[in-house]
Amino acid sequence: MTAGLTPARARERFRAGLSTPTSGWCAGWTQANLIAVPQEYAWDVLLFAQRNPKPCPVLDVLEPGEFAGAILEGDVRTDLPGYRVYRDGELADRPSEVVEHWGDDLVGFLIGCSFTFENALLDAGVPVRHIELGRNVPMYRTTRRCRRAGRMSGPLVVSMRPVPRALVDTAVEVTARYPQVHGAPVHCGDPAALGIADLGAPDYGDPVPVADGEVPVFWACGVTPQAAVLESRLPLAITHEPGRMLITDARDTDYRI
Amino acid sequence: MTAGLTPARARERFRAGLSTPTSGWCAGWTQANLIAVPQEYAWDVLLFAQRNPKPCPVLDVLEPGEFAGAILEGDVRTDLPGYRVYRDGELADRPSEVVEHWGDDLVGFLIGCSFTFENALLDAGVPVRHIELGRNVPMYRTTRRCRRAGRMSGPLVVSMRPVPRALVDTAVEVTARYPQVHGAPVHCGDPAALGIADLGAPDYGDPVPVADGEVPVFWACGVTPQAAVLESRLPLAITHEPGRMLITDARDTDYRI
Repeated sequence: MTAGLTPARARERFRAGLSTPTSGWCAGWTQANLIAVPQEYAWDVLLFAQRNPKPCPVLDVLEPGEFAGAILEGDVRTDLPGYRVYRDGELADRPSEVVEHWGDDLVGFLIGCSFTFENALLDAGVPVRHIELGRNVPMYRTTRRCRRAGRMSGPLVVSMRPVPRALVDTAVEVTARYPQVHGAPVHCGDPAALGIADLGAPDYGDPVPVADGEVPVFWACGVTPQAAVLESRLPLAITHEPGRMLITDARDTDYRI
Repeated sequence: MTAGLTPARARERFRAGLSTPTSGWCAGWTQANLIAVPQEYAWDVLLFAQRNPKPCPVLDVLEPGEFAGAILEGDVRTDLPGYRVYRDGELADRPSEVVEHWGDDLVGFLIGCSFTFENALLDAGVPVRHIELGRNVPMYRTTRRCRRAGRMSGPLVVSMRPVPRALVDTAVEVTARYPQVHGAPVHCGDPAALGIADLGAPDYGDPVPVADGEVPVFWACGVTPQAAVLESRLPLAITHEPGRMLITDARDTDYRI
């Protein structure tokens, strides 16, 4: 039933304290990753996103003092079901809201999330395992490097969905139509090709089984800037908790081509 | 024969002093608009581009001290067939190279250009009038406003190509596959809908006739940031001369979806 909620109703629940992965919530609406950094680092982050559009498609930017915007009527500091606060390249806190942490000079980036195209996958008959199991999507740091921008550098992070072999082409075609929410997969089939040693031990989210006859399919993931924030030891960054996304007021079809 | 040149050979001619519109040059290669501003204004320009992706698709960013990059082996200060220097919102100079003007703190943005998809239009049987006539494409300032970013605000600028009525759908379909070089048209048919009073008096480039049975088709144009630089009275901006583009080392198919 959470699939039928409006974004405003979903955000209301998260604001009230509910913390849960948002995959499967608010079918038809666009979900977004959050990364907010001090203005001094905003150029590096925006340039990093421009240079790595596959993992970091920017949907909107909230300038200092803005907590809502063109695709969000709520409050970005309270309306997500989970946050992370990184300080000097360490995970410092995982609060349920970040009003106190959000300084006057923070710039917030809303970055496309692959949960947005999962409804289209289901419509096309492609099963989505983590939704079936009520889990978070598994996410992995890879050995592929992003293109550096100023002080921001780091690895590509990917999400993984097992897809029946006969439906891999369909999954590619469907998701390719959503380039703003990561688009087509970056790799199908071999975890080792991305430097992933064990699918059962994701770096973020929950593991899901890959059945016989299924292929692990990997999409670029908006957690990528979090990995860069860690590696680059930015003094401060506020992000969503991986898998617990901002649900925006933009329709998923707004980003379909 | 200029259609068959490599980008390196074309840039060599421009570096030697040739000034000419580049439409029709180097078939199969990506052309780009240039806008360079002092670092202090770079955030505003990049955010303006992010907020107005149709006229301002960023292909690459050259940081201070960089005159070449991932899609350019030449020198951005000498290899274009014409430049403009804007100071305090006035057109100050139209030099043939900008080595002396290009200060240590300039950030250069390479922005997609619709000349890139003209080869695909020709391949699809859609005639391109300004190439037929050996002219520059006509460009117009419209009454549509771009979304503001910091100190950058201004109108949408468009290029116009007359298309036979029966081929308008084809022109839309072909160009929609190139979102990084302006993609599908922003309007087909009525110049007045964009606030264009007289197709015969473009704001940049040359007029071209629209024959009976043809529809004027308007694409977003990478001269848009120049209009914003004027309106926003930036202290300094270096751009290409409209229609006299940077020819990059990226294939046009790199930007086709």
